Amino acid sequence: MNELQPIALERDDATADLVVTDGRVYCSNRREFLERDVAIVGDSIAALLEDAASVTGPETTVVSAADQYVLPGFIDAHTHADIQLTPERAAPSLLATGTTSVVTETSGLGLLFGSRGVETTLERTAERPLTTYLTLPPQWFVDTFEPARGDEEELEALAALLEHERVVGVGEIDWVHVVGRDVPLEALYERAREANARIVGHGAGCRGDALRAFATVVDNDHEAITADGVRERATNGIHVVGRCGTIRDDLGALVDALPDLDRGSVSLSTDGVWPTELEDGFGMHEVVRRAIDAGVPAADVIDAATRNTAEHFGLEGRGVVAPGAMADLVVVDDLETIAVDTVVSEGSIVVEDGAPTVEPRTDPYPDYVYDTVSVDLERERFTAPRDSVRSEDVRAMAVDQGLVTTETTVEPGTDTDTDLVGPAAERDALTATLIDRAPGTADRGFTGFLTGFGLERGAVATTGTWEVPGLLTVAADTDDAVVAAEHVASMGGGFAVARDGSVVADLAMPVGATAAEAPLPRVAEEFKILENALYELGTDIERPLLTLQTLTFLGVPTLKLTPSGYADVLDRSLVGLDLEE
Amino acid sequence: MNELQPIALERDDATADLVVTDGRVYCSNRREFLERDVAIVGDSIAALLEDAASVTGPETTVVSAADQYVLPGFIDAHTHADIQLTPERAAPSLLATGTTSVVTETSGLGLLFGSRGVETTLERTAERPLTTYLTLPPQWFVDTFEPARGDEEELEALAALLEHERVVGVGEIDWVHVVGRDVPLEALYERAREANARIVGHGAGCRGDALRAFATVVDNDHEAITADGVRERATNGIHVVGRCGTIRDDLGALVDALPDLDRGSVSLSTDGVWPTELEDGFGMHEVVRRAIDAGVPAADVIDAATRNTAEHFGLEGRGVVAPGAMADLVVVDDLETIAVDTVVSEGSIVVEDGAPTVEPRTDPYPDYVYDTVSVDLERERFTAPRDSVRSEDVRAMAVDQGLVTTETTVEPGTDTDTDLVGPAAERDALTATLIDRAPGTADRGFTGFLTGFGLERGAVATTGTWEVPGLLTVAADTDDAVVAAEHVASMGGGFAVARDGSVVADLAMPVGATAAEAPLPRVAEEFKILENALYELGTDIERPLLTLQTLTFLGVPTLKLTPSGYADVLDRSLVGLDLEE
Repeated sequence: MNELQPIALERDDATADLVVTDGRVYCSNRREFLERDVAIVGDSIAALLEDAASVTGPETTVVSAADQYVLPGFIDAHTHADIQLTPERAAPSLLATGTTSVVTETSGLGLLFGSRGVETTLERTAERPLTTYLTLPPQWFVDTFEPARGDEEELEALAALLEHERVVGVGEIDWVHVVGRDVPLEALYERAREANARIVGHGAGCRGDALRAFATVVDNDHEAITADGVRERATNGIHVVGRCGTIRDDLGALVDALPDLDRGSVSLSTDGVWPTELEDGFGMHEVVRRAIDAGVPAADVIDAATRNTAEHFGLEGRGVVAPGAMADLVVVDDLETIAVDTVVSEGSIVVEDGAPTVEPRTDPYPDYVYDTVSVDLERERFTAPRDSVRSEDVRAMAVDQGLVTTETTVEPGTDTDTDLVGPAAERDALTATLIDRAPGTADRGFTGFLTGFGLERGAVATTGTWEVPGLLTVAADTDDAVVAAEHVASMGGGFAVARDGSVVADLAMPVGATAAEAPLPRVAEEFKILENALYELGTDIERPLLTLQTLTFLGVPTLKLTPSGYADVLDRSLVGLDLEE
Repeated sequence: MNELQPIALERDDATADLVVTDGRVYCSNRREFLERDVAIVGDSIAALLEDAASVTGPETTVVSAADQYVLPGFIDAHTHADIQLTPERAAPSLLATGTTSVVTETSGLGLLFGSRGVETTLERTAERPLTTYLTLPPQWFVDTFEPARGDEEELEALAALLEHERVVGVGEIDWVHVVGRDVPLEALYERAREANARIVGHGAGCRGDALRAFATVVDNDHEAITADGVRERATNGIHVVGRCGTIRDDLGALVDALPDLDRGSVSLSTDGVWPTELEDGFGMHEVVRRAIDAGVPAADVIDAATRNTAEHFGLEGRGVVAPGAMADLVVVDDLETIAVDTVVSEGSIVVEDGAPTVEPRTDPYPDYVYDTVSVDLERERFTAPRDSVRSEDVRAMAVDQGLVTTETTVEPGTDTDTDLVGPAAERDALTATLIDRAPGTADRGFTGFLTGFGLERGAVATTGTWEVPGLLTVAADTDDAVVAAEHVASMGGGFAVARDGSVVADLAMPVGATAAEAPLPRVAEEFKILENALYELGTDIERPLLTLQTLTFLGVPTLKLTPSGYADVLDRSLVGLDLEE
């Protein structure tokens, strides 16, 4: 007899470890709130009882949920919990948003170190209390603009990780890489399909025949930004992951389309919450609140934030309040505010009165993840050679919206010291330099131009580049670019803003050069200081750090940076500065 | 690029292998019927196109579904496709009911031979065109009334089979075995949970605290026979499998409860279709038809007959008409008759104009499955020893409904030849003898009594005993019991009816002594002849063969036969003939 049965049978000698009493318990099989006491033994729900007094002993922890609602712990269906801040540091605050499980990309160590980085992320997140499911980084087997970094050995190493119970698939792939072209990644996808793992899509801007083709490759997509886009994905059998987070809020599209969808075929996600917003208390509870507020039936919203995701990704025992399931619960005050009171994760209370009762893991990572910015920072790398330009103007990226850059031209400046091509801040022609920092290819780099970012002086540097392990600078002043880059390198990664030869703001992200390991409040504060420093330098973009990170992000058209030149994303070609080439 | 993309992209050189044109295609993500052409490459759906002409070449097979509906192939969520008739023999007729996948118990070879039998069943069903998912036999690790047959080696062998892509769980377990008691089976369940496999329940009569406890063990149950029973299972997190087949029709209970349920948490099943009814054309299409006819929205019914089951059991790529999914399709004339026209299984047409276009596999099984009725058939075994009875009356089973037997008493007869205790047909006191035929324990046997079956003369023998590998006779005449049993043994298993010393009807079931391998029409005919022979002998039970098979079935209270005595199912004890013991 398993250890749950005596509780279910209310045997005389049966005592629950934890009971959550008097709440309205969400039963997803019934789409109803039932007045039940939840009795928990170890990490599992033993029974929903009329009255748990029968199984309450002196050792039993009792949580009263009177006049409250007991929901399954929220599951974030798509996030980047491993960048900006380490997942361990973020965990207590994520739990306080009612999130007990995340499905996260391995966009930090996985991107940089492949299988080894995934293994480290698995090890670091093995400790409770946030249950962290991972997807494998696909970028190693993409060869759209650059040669694929992965070899057969790495393929095998990644594929072997599919056997891990917390590895649930292959992470998001931009449709431009896989639609209509052969890509080494297909070998990993085959292995994923054999393992019944999911393939995550990134279909920003994908529609029509391209979306149909993408649907033969991926299982889900979080990039629908219109109701039509949601419907079109559903029609093509793609599980729609709604998104509301730091990057974007596309909840309205999902809400509008939901009446035309099977309610079981959608999930909710944040796609990542930045430290600033996490510190402000943003998270899945707020996503749920907004969806309910927008008129979606509460049961549909809760399912999309819990069981639908568990079923889609095969997260065994998660997402439901039912006998035998994991005791992941969130007690909220009501269904209007979704104010989180108590959170139970695998049977342990981790949030009380809305505040985490657990401390983050803080011991150091393995040595190899530190000091990963070993690149040559000679000043010339932050300029363009004179012979790369044959006319007055050069090709440049223009900031359109936060994530989007379009192609334009600018008239660059002449670097005063060297006669190389440099920024001309007075014409908003900033240099944008990307230096590769992937092991083995760190000699590559490219300086392009960016307009619309609005720096009038100084420079900013970061290693928090999406999709490409790089060191990026955007500069109105080449000397400041070098100062900022050197500072970032000296921190082992992070952000730095330089002005007049000095660093004026910084944030260390020493873990894989993509994640801070300082306490959340400090990191959030430093993010704000960085933003303010950029505003001081003249930018009027609302989220300048986000824009920086997405300059290397090939998932959003049209012109982006690679270490070998501009990526013309839709044309899938590399182009340089010269307009005549 | 996978082989589906060129079709989705409608490339010039792209040609589908099969297109199903002009139908109303069910899209479960949308819960809608879309006017699309389905383009198929190999075994997979490549795209839903506005017009498949663009991918139709000279080699493309074109199926017109004009004015028809294109649904995912039906999945029978719980059946016994491996007994009465071999699954291969049944397959073409099952396909003609729109069923392209079954989740079947291994109630024949699995029950008798354990892992070896499962392996053989896997091998026999590996050939297309019916996709056969199996559950492992739990009976080897049950010790409620008899010692468990399985040892550590067998546990490992069964657990290893959980890795097979078509082994999806552990088969149905009667709640009386696992609720409130320790059972060796738990070790297999642990392995199943590690493998994310499902545990099938058989909760007939289970309710209240027992059902709560059962819910900590099993994932689904097909034994709800009232709407309250359906609701209670759902509340306890149990996936409800509705049943409509040869054994029972409980569809009404599901239909009544459905408005109170999440529509994604239910599946449909037959729980087995006998050859007679299969030959008459009964199957999943009829289950679907009846559910729609009862007022359930068509989308809910189709989902319950397709994707819900695929999702619950993790049948990858099944149950939906969507890009990348298996091309399992059923084209029906309309949603009122669900008249099956064309069936596509993994991209191949297997039914045309309602008739199978495929032949069953007919080569012999491995030798070991034949001649498995090696038991001692001495006449005394079909009587009870005089000293087992101390009063005039003895304990007896009374036929209540088809599957249920209650406890009563009868006054037995005296065997004329031997002074042993025998039948007294004039008082409807029939002997019911169960001889074990499991390897290693075939020396065990028990003769009890049965009333309400109504034989006035003769005897019937069968090896088609549920849950217990046995040879059963029910006799008004002990000589005829021996004749029938010997005939069944000589056939290597099956049914035989004897009268006045001669066999008057028979059916050979030589495969594991539980499945016929003759053509379906012949087997169906022989079933009818057997039933008529029993009517001739005086029974007025509607389905006497079914009643016989369930005399050993411990899943339905209250008094049943084991090779060691009566099983008092609810008391979980073995009792004998003697009322005073």
